[in-house]
Amino acid sequence: MKKQSIDDSFFHHTSVAIAGASTSYNIGHAFVSCMLDSGFKGRVYPVNPGGGEILGLKVYPSIGDIPGTVDYVISCIPARLTPQLVRDSAAKGARIVSFFTAGYSENGRAEGRDLEEELLRVAQASGVRLLGPNCLGLYCPDIGLSFACDFPREKGNVGFIGQSGGNSIYLIRAAGQRGIRFSKAISYGNALDVDESDLFDYFAADAETEMVAAYLEGVKDGPRFVGALKRLSSVKPVVILKGGSTGAGAIAAASHTGSLAGADQAWEALLDESGAVRVHSLDEMVDMLVTFEYMPPPQGRNMVLCGSNGGFTVLTADEYVRAGFKLPPLSPQDQHDINDVVARFSNTDAGMILRNPFDVTNIGSGEGHYTIMRRLADNNVFDLLTVQVSISNSGWPHAESPFRFWPDMFLDALLKVHREVNKAVAVIIHSAISDVDCQRSLELQHKCSSAGLPVYTSISSAAKAMDRFLRYHERRQD
Amino acid sequence: MKKQSIDDSFFHHTSVAIAGASTSYNIGHAFVSCMLDSGFKGRVYPVNPGGGEILGLKVYPSIGDIPGTVDYVISCIPARLTPQLVRDSAAKGARIVSFFTAGYSENGRAEGRDLEEELLRVAQASGVRLLGPNCLGLYCPDIGLSFACDFPREKGNVGFIGQSGGNSIYLIRAAGQRGIRFSKAISYGNALDVDESDLFDYFAADAETEMVAAYLEGVKDGPRFVGALKRLSSVKPVVILKGGSTGAGAIAAASHTGSLAGADQAWEALLDESGAVRVHSLDEMVDMLVTFEYMPPPQGRNMVLCGSNGGFTVLTADEYVRAGFKLPPLSPQDQHDINDVVARFSNTDAGMILRNPFDVTNIGSGEGHYTIMRRLADNNVFDLLTVQVSISNSGWPHAESPFRFWPDMFLDALLKVHREVNKAVAVIIHSAISDVDCQRSLELQHKCSSAGLPVYTSISSAAKAMDRFLRYHERRQD
Repeated sequence: MKKQSIDDSFFHHTSVAIAGASTSYNIGHAFVSCMLDSGFKGRVYPVNPGGGEILGLKVYPSIGDIPGTVDYVISCIPARLTPQLVRDSAAKGARIVSFFTAGYSENGRAEGRDLEEELLRVAQASGVRLLGPNCLGLYCPDIGLSFACDFPREKGNVGFIGQSGGNSIYLIRAAGQRGIRFSKAISYGNALDVDESDLFDYFAADAETEMVAAYLEGVKDGPRFVGALKRLSSVKPVVILKGGSTGAGAIAAASHTGSLAGADQAWEALLDESGAVRVHSLDEMVDMLVTFEYMPPPQGRNMVLCGSNGGFTVLTADEYVRAGFKLPPLSPQDQHDINDVVARFSNTDAGMILRNPFDVTNIGSGEGHYTIMRRLADNNVFDLLTVQVSISNSGWPHAESPFRFWPDMFLDALLKVHREVNKAVAVIIHSAISDVDCQRSLELQHKCSSAGLPVYTSISSAAKAMDRFLRYHERRQD
Repeated sequence: MKKQSIDDSFFHHTSVAIAGASTSYNIGHAFVSCMLDSGFKGRVYPVNPGGGEILGLKVYPSIGDIPGTVDYVISCIPARLTPQLVRDSAAKGARIVSFFTAGYSENGRAEGRDLEEELLRVAQASGVRLLGPNCLGLYCPDIGLSFACDFPREKGNVGFIGQSGGNSIYLIRAAGQRGIRFSKAISYGNALDVDESDLFDYFAADAETEMVAAYLEGVKDGPRFVGALKRLSSVKPVVILKGGSTGAGAIAAASHTGSLAGADQAWEALLDESGAVRVHSLDEMVDMLVTFEYMPPPQGRNMVLCGSNGGFTVLTADEYVRAGFKLPPLSPQDQHDINDVVARFSNTDAGMILRNPFDVTNIGSGEGHYTIMRRLADNNVFDLLTVQVSISNSGWPHAESPFRFWPDMFLDALLKVHREVNKAVAVIIHSAISDVDCQRSLELQHKCSSAGLPVYTSISSAAKAMDRFLRYHERRQD
């Protein structure tokens, strides 16, 4: 039987069965609970020989006992029982079986590899496609399908594939916090059947998906992957994190998802040639998604910096210059004008830096911040306006300090400028220390990303992501 | 009159006057409030021509009106009035005047430079030493002297100097959160009189200070600084962040603290030659202080890694190998033994990595974690044991998941091993996303640092700090 190709029907299901869900807490139970919490729009069938009820849903003794058809089956049963599960699923019309179940090739033993081969034979004979094993499966917010209860419910334009379930959870949550929404995300584990190349080809054609991120540990069919990657990155930005790029990492990857990690130099060359953006951590991946999502491609690297605290202003300038940006000075006339503007809002310039980079900590008026930043954003010398706000210092010298209002005042002024002026703008909200800092930082992040601004959480990570973004576009202009 | 050298009397005061404190909120008022909140053990005299009362303290019209002597004066008055303030302070027996007041050489105008020269003449004629201008002054927890209300009250063994007030606040708060305590810290601004060389010489001799960190923007007397740095770093670890190391950063530094930043290559060469550890951000500085404080120098770079989540295990191995560490495999006998240990606590090895690096996410027993980590720590092949815990995933798939107990169970087991075995141990608590994650992360950080363990908040920053620490010691062994 011919393999079903990966198309929208791979993601849009009207019924899901979870094999191995128990009436008390286990991982299958948790999957059932997630479907309900995530607002899955189809039917949910827990399956367990013990029967009973989970969260008001009848538990069926076997897949075969479910009335009607089943589109998507999630396996949480022991590995040795899974070939029969695939047969039963096929008989019920399932298009896809996803295996939380682990204990296959990644354990390095012959019986694990044998089981995988058996699964593959059964699947190929029946036309069912397999996801994993050793994975979390599908996240498709459009239909409320999810593998964690707190993933964003709204759909978006980012496609993600992750060979590690834990890394997939982190990436979706962390990017979600920074305003990223997903078209579809797939945790695909050992990639026994459906693999990164299948998914890249799907995303290349998927109209909902405008950029793609991937956490890969290894690929089995190199030439096919090279083709799929090149096709995808010729039409959409692709961000790739390669795990197992060192000897010890590769050993871990083999034990983790049975992956052959491959030489790092070959990966470096391939990713460079394909035009994909390579990152080295999940946080760098989130930074890239935020940048591609929220930053219009700037015309060049001339930046004006504005923010809080002289010392952080100095360090921010250092980071951006090291990352290849330029901070041109204002012309004498522009400098004269900006000094006049500042003089309207402050009777002294003491304790501020009023040249590029700007430290305007001691401006205590939102109108002042607006007027200064509007003037800087209007200046065509600058391709980008980057602002940085230190959270921990805004409670100096004590929690009741008027400085605590500074970040809101300053960022509100920036948002007004951003609405009015067509200029690439970036926001760094950094240096949170306490739990109170964290909470304020998250609120301010949300305020800015809701307004369509890219937000970063450290000076160095912002400079690195923006440099990669500029490189991406500079390469396409050559 | 001969300059008073910097000795303990520079830090230990029995009376402080704050010039420019007003009865309603201003910065002088805030300094008064900080002294009270920080438990300053001496007398506090607010000074303002308007008189009145601040927080129950009488406000004196001038320094001269204060009864008895004054050791330390903090200036929050306009720059043009400060020469007279220094004369008045000298007449009252003050040893030191610190200037929050800005508006001197850093504004680039002739009158700012002239004022600084006048201050210097007055100070030299009277024997008073000047701190700043454009600084926050002294933090000396031993006597409850502080420039922020929430700095740690306990004293410690780290000396810090910072040319930026904001950076000093952040460094002290952030390091404090990670378990670092200070002997003395000095925000010294424009360094008109007391400068980095004076303070390095003091710290070299100070028995309370076992390591020193410095945020520098520039030095005026290069040869003197080279000597002071070499003397200091020959006896104690020194960590240096140089702000203004790029062209734009240097322009900012000139406007910030009137500093001539100097060529970055010269700094790189000097810091390398002196054996100081150079960092590129305040967070990297905190990481180094944590490492020097809590990690015994390992015998070598052979590391065993243990932690949560397969994907993060792969990425952690990659980071450490890139940072120059080795992750040797277990011998066949040791591997056999550890498999036996694991089998006692889990009926399957599915979903785990049971070789170096170890992923033990699916061990659900504290005794299991203890037994495994104790076995690994006892293995003399390994010079270091590093563990990583992903916070965000510990709430997977939902907030009520049993996985949420994993980090505490795992880290409690580690702390037990750490108490029993003499081995360098490092803890990475990473991937906090939500405010709840932040709070848990801070609690776990505190648990580990209270037990004397170095804690890091990201995988890459931990690997970088530990590599710098190893390099520091390797250099001294050569």
